[in-house]
Amino acid sequence: MTGLLPGILTGLDLTGVFFFAVSGCLLAARRGFDIVGSVLLGSLAGLGGGIVRDLILDQGIPNAFAEPVYLVPPLLAAGLVHFHVVRVERHRRSLLAFDAAGLALFCVTGTSTALEAGMGPVPATLLGVATAVGGGVLRDVVANEVPQLFNPRGVYAVPALLGAGTTTLLREAGWLSIPSGAAVAVAVFALRLLSLRFGWRVPLAARRPRDWPPGTGPGRR
Amino acid sequence: MTGLLPGILTGLDLTGVFFFAVSGCLLAARRGFDIVGSVLLGSLAGLGGGIVRDLILDQGIPNAFAEPVYLVPPLLAAGLVHFHVVRVERHRRSLLAFDAAGLALFCVTGTSTALEAGMGPVPATLLGVATAVGGGVLRDVVANEVPQLFNPRGVYAVPALLGAGTTTLLREAGWLSIPSGAAVAVAVFALRLLSLRFGWRVPLAARRPRDWPPGTGPGRR
Amino acid sequence: MTGLLPGILTGLDLTGVFFFAVSGCLLAARRGFDIVGSVLLGSLAGLGGGIVRDLILDQGIPNAFAEPVYLVPPLLAAGLVHFHVVRVERHRRSLLAFDAAGLALFCVTGTSTALEAGMGPVPATLLGVATAVGGGVLRDVVANEVPQLFNPRGVYAVPALLGAGTTTLLREAGWLSIPSGAAVAVAVFALRLLSLRFGWRVPLAARRPRDWPPGTGPGRR
Repeated sequence: MTGLLPGILTGLDLTGVFFFAVSGCLLAARRGFDIVGSVLLGSLAGLGGGIVRDLILDQGIPNAFAEPVYLVPPLLAAGLVHFHVVRVERHRRSLLAFDAAGLALFCVTGTSTALEAGMGPVPATLLGVATAVGGGVLRDVVANEVPQLFNPRGVYAVPALLGAGTTTLLREAGWLSIPSGAAVAVAVFALRLLSLRFGWRVPLAARRPRDWPPGTGPGRR
Repeated sequence: MTGLLPGILTGLDLTGVFFFAVSGCLLAARRGFDIVGSVLLGSLAGLGGGIVRDLILDQGIPNAFAEPVYLVPPLLAAGLVHFHVVRVERHRRSLLAFDAAGLALFCVTGTSTALEAGMGPVPATLLGVATAVGGGVLRDVVANEVPQLFNPRGVYAVPALLGAGTTTLLREAGWLSIPSGAAVAVAVFALRLLSLRFGWRVPLAARRPRDWPPGTGPGRR
Repeated sequence: MTGLLPGILTGLDLTGVFFFAVSGCLLAARRGFDIVGSVLLGSLAGLGGGIVRDLILDQGIPNAFAEPVYLVPPLLAAGLVHFHVVRVERHRRSLLAFDAAGLALFCVTGTSTALEAGMGPVPATLLGVATAVGGGVLRDVVANEVPQLFNPRGVYAVPALLGAGTTTLLREAGWLSIPSGAAVAVAVFALRLLSLRFGWRVPLAARRPRDWPPGTGPGRR
């Protein structure tokens, strides 16, 4: 049973932080926040999931505060968005793509970190999912929006759960490596983007009874 | 000085998780979220208060992550709401009833858990209140609604505080048992529902000065 | 290298809690919450930043729960707002002034607490900023508003960062004392209020391209 090397894990983690940070900075731009708000929303999106994970793992000061290198991705992201190196659009397409990339990397690195910390397979998988979706939820909640996580168009938590579960299975089988972890992340990313492209949906929280006309009942506020 | 047996405490805690989870799934149905969003919002409502409590108690990994049995109530709740076994209504009545049941159980179990962990009476009572109201606040905030906690119609935190305080007094007197704890929970539940039924109110945050005409001043956004 | 005496630090911390608590109670009044909601929103505003700081420092039960004296400022604040001892206005001026006072004190006490706990200069400065802005963000998010932190009119995080950084430098130089810490807090307070008075701004998250007509593009939702 082997895991990812710590250095590699940190590198992947920082890359995931960067992708989520860009999604936060793009949301800041859409909402008309200033550059400082952009750095802060990018930091929350990029570092929030990992801070929650580290608080739950209860192993001292979270990495995001203990290691100043974690500041670099949000600052870089805010700069790239400010100067339009990353395209700032009216529609959400690039925001959702960066969000998907962060989701894909974090379900792998979050699950790995939890397994390295000695968590069992089921808790580690769940904490991996929480790490992956947490930053995006914090980003949207703090910007006073309904989280993407709850958008019924496309699937969000399902690819994260599949990615976290596969990471756990690979780790248990001794097959978790840089290429296999990267393959899982790529698959999660593709699944998320395809679900957005083709509008895949899962059933609603409550089945619409047959005798309700369309446009009525729960789900219409 | 005796407390509730750990097995009983876990059973009551899981029941409270279930009630809050149903409230989360009902909110997901009202908002048109899908079944995955329902499981997640139910999990946040059911497990959020306990996770915050366990983070503050600082005793290792929170129960909700360490013990996979805590996943059962949210999954069950999402299923019951999806198939309309729990009635999904346009109005909030059933949501508020399940929320009240969770509040009632959690102010007893949250306070007990804090006392078992060695907290003093005042901190344990406050942490019991925070556990009881925390899941509902997280549920509403993440769904981008003003928390029920702040709805001036009916009382919410007051019954939770009375329940948590009574639990602490019973524990100090050596009278905390399954029947006495259940009686406290039933009283809190009844008080919350009666306050909603009869529209009981406490004074507003700021007294309305006499010279303000109705419908003006703070409180009208 | 000396820090502030623990007793002084607690006194300043409680004063900061009081200022933020008043801002929370004023927001509760604006939104028409009741007196219990006022106490709770005041507590969240006043104690939230410190609880997050203590969770991240991972040193046992947060002060706000361990020491019941931390309940006094929110109760006092709710009383002062209820009886209009603190002026409750339609506009946000007094809310923003109390918020600024809390921000000013917390960037000094938060940074000091983190340094006392043995954190390095950069992490301690960042945690000081997080402590200073955290309570206000929680207050606004729970009341379902876009946080003041993201209001592009005036600067908010910048004075907090300058205050936290200066506190760290003073501590490293052995010059941190009651007068020097108080001077830093007064400077932060003045900078925040001046920025509101004169509408100082920093650049937006995304530069507005030249070929966009005014009132279009990101930032207009």
